[in-house]
Formats: sequence, C-alpha cells, structure tokens
Amino acid sequence: MPSAESLARAESLIRTIPDYPEPGVLFRDITPLLADRDALRATIDAMIEPFEGRFDVVAGVEARGFILAGAAAIAAGVGLVPIRKAGKLPRPAASVSYELEYGTATIECHDDIAPGTRVLLIDDVLATGGTLVAAHELVARLGAEVVGTTVLMELEALGGRALVGDVHAVFTA
Amino acid sequence: MPSAESLARAESLIRTIPDYPEPGVLFRDITPLLADRDALRATIDAMIEPFEGRFDVVAGVEARGFILAGAAAIAAGVGLVPIRKAGKLPRPAASVSYELEYGTATIECHDDIAPGTRVLLIDDVLATGGTLVAAHELVARLGAEVVGTTVLMELEALGGRALVGDVHAVFTA
Repeated sequence: MPSAESLARAESLIRTIPDYPEPGVLFRDITPLLADRDALRATIDAMIEPFEGRFDVVAGVEARGFILAGAAAIAAGVGLVPIRKAGKLPRPAASVSYELEYGTATIECHDDIAPGTRVLLIDDVLATGGTLVAAHELVARLGAEVVGTTVLMELEALGGRALVGDVHAVFTA
Repeated sequence: MPSAESLARAESLIRTIPDYPEPGVLFRDITPLLADRDALRATIDAMIEPFEGRFDVVAGVEARGFILAGAAAIAAGVGLVPIRKAGKLPRPAASVSYELEYGTATIECHDDIAPGTRVLLIDDVLATGGTLVAAHELVARLGAEVVGTTVLMELEALGGRALVGDVHAVFTA
C-alpha cells in the first residue's frame, strides 16, 4: 500500500481547470499525475490494493480508462479487457447502450475471457456513473463476475455512487 | 527479455479477421493477447527491452496505444504522456495535423514533461506510419527528445517504416 505522503503528493499533481468543457464546470486534469512515475505508481497501487488476489483481469473503459487499466494489469500481474465505444471492435460479443445527458452511448467488448472470470472494472473518474453501470452490465453479459469497481477520482457532487454502488476511489473532489 | 517461447505463444493469440473494416483487409485483433496475463507481460517486456534505461517517460497514442503505454510505464517504472485526438484536452500545449487516406487528423498533448525529457513513443500497430510521424513531431515541439518508437505489431506491406524510420516491432505481419 502506498504511503499517505506519496498519495498526497500524487493528488497535488491533479490540476483543476475552471470552466471546462463548459462554464461553471471544474475539470480535473490527471495528466500531470500520469507523467510523474512515483505518482503514477502510487495511484495505481492504491487503486488495486483493496482487491488484491480477488481478480483475474482488469477491464478498462475507453479512452482514459485504458491508461489506468494497462498500468493496473502489469502492477497486478493480470490480463486486460478493453471496453470500447461502439464500432471499434470487429466482433463485439456484447454491447450495452446507456443514456447520456444528451442522447445515448454504446460500449462493447470481445469475449476473450471465460465465464466466471473475476473482473475488476477500472475507469479514471466516477461522475454520474452511467458508463460504469453499463460496463458492469457488459461484463455480466459475458458470464464473468465483476468483483469490484475502482476509479482514480470520484466527483462526489455528481452522485454516481448512488447508481454504481460500491466503488473504490483513491481521490475525491 | 521474454523467452522466444513466451513471445511465440503471445503471437499465437493475435487473431486475424478477414475483410475488416473493409473487404480485402486482414484486421489483426490483439484483444486475446491483452486478456492473457503472461502474453501481455511478455509482449510489454519485449516492447521496452531495447530501450531500457534510455527513456524517462512513455508517450502513448489514443486509444489502443494508451493500453500499451500504461502497461509499459509500470513495467519500466516511468511516467506517461497521453497523446490525444483533438478536442479532448483542456489546455493542449502542442498540436500536429496530418493526412489520412480520407481527410486529416490532429493529435495533441499537454506539456507535463520538462524540455529534454527522453520519450519512448508507443503504439499498437505500425501501418502507414502517419500517426507515429505526427506523434514524433508533437513530442519534439515540447522540446523533449524521442529516443525510440516501439509497436506491438508492424504491418510490413503498408510500408510505414519508410516514413517513421527506426521502429522496434515485436511482431510483424
């Protein structure tokens, strides 16, 4: 488990950008954290630590979730399932659509994991939770088991936790 | 360095899908390789091994490059710079446009790395090479130094190597 100091330092590297992507919104930019090797490693370790030994693969949501899932897969010594936006996979085995603020989105994945595989869901931010609920459903349709959901940061004011249920968040804002 | 056996096994997990995304094209699907922990680790180790000790960060190209860059960052103990498609970053510090078969594309990144930082460029596939050349230019505009380019797979018939120059490819097709 990374030290409180190393996580505090990692958190200090998250940059807050006002009025992006629209007025009144505070955007949390994690790229300075990603670029710092110690901050990246401490954050990834903190994301997976509560689930250690309880998952066989990580599943990451396109696109920023791919970065964290790739990192977590190597840190934990497991494989990785990419959850992609619609139309990117040649042979999607499962597909789930969900509501956005405006319109709908669809996510898909291949069936490269056996039924019963234990999956840790990974994304960068828990906002409204819509994508993570859809990702949970997607993994369930493969016959795999979601053993947990972990994010780098939870935006508490958006209330996603009520929708997704139990989520591990390393940082909150 | 991973054994020849472990890399041969990883390569055997790359699935070839005929006539995708259009008739006559053989699509190389790496998701079965990613889902296998031993194949993923062996492939990542083989991607970074020639550059060991010579880079400070990896830079991965959205979206599949993010998976491999995240994995490589943890395997090598370095930080990561995401190279994103236009419009995804709140404060792009550099931006490069390049030609596609139809139209143009633009990639962007933040300036989270100091000038002189040694960067290893990572992507999944070397095809025509247009994206990797643009990524090279993008990193150079930050004042950083590209010390190498590494891909999981090179599609030799598309001739990207002529454009990109020296590229390390773990697998070829």
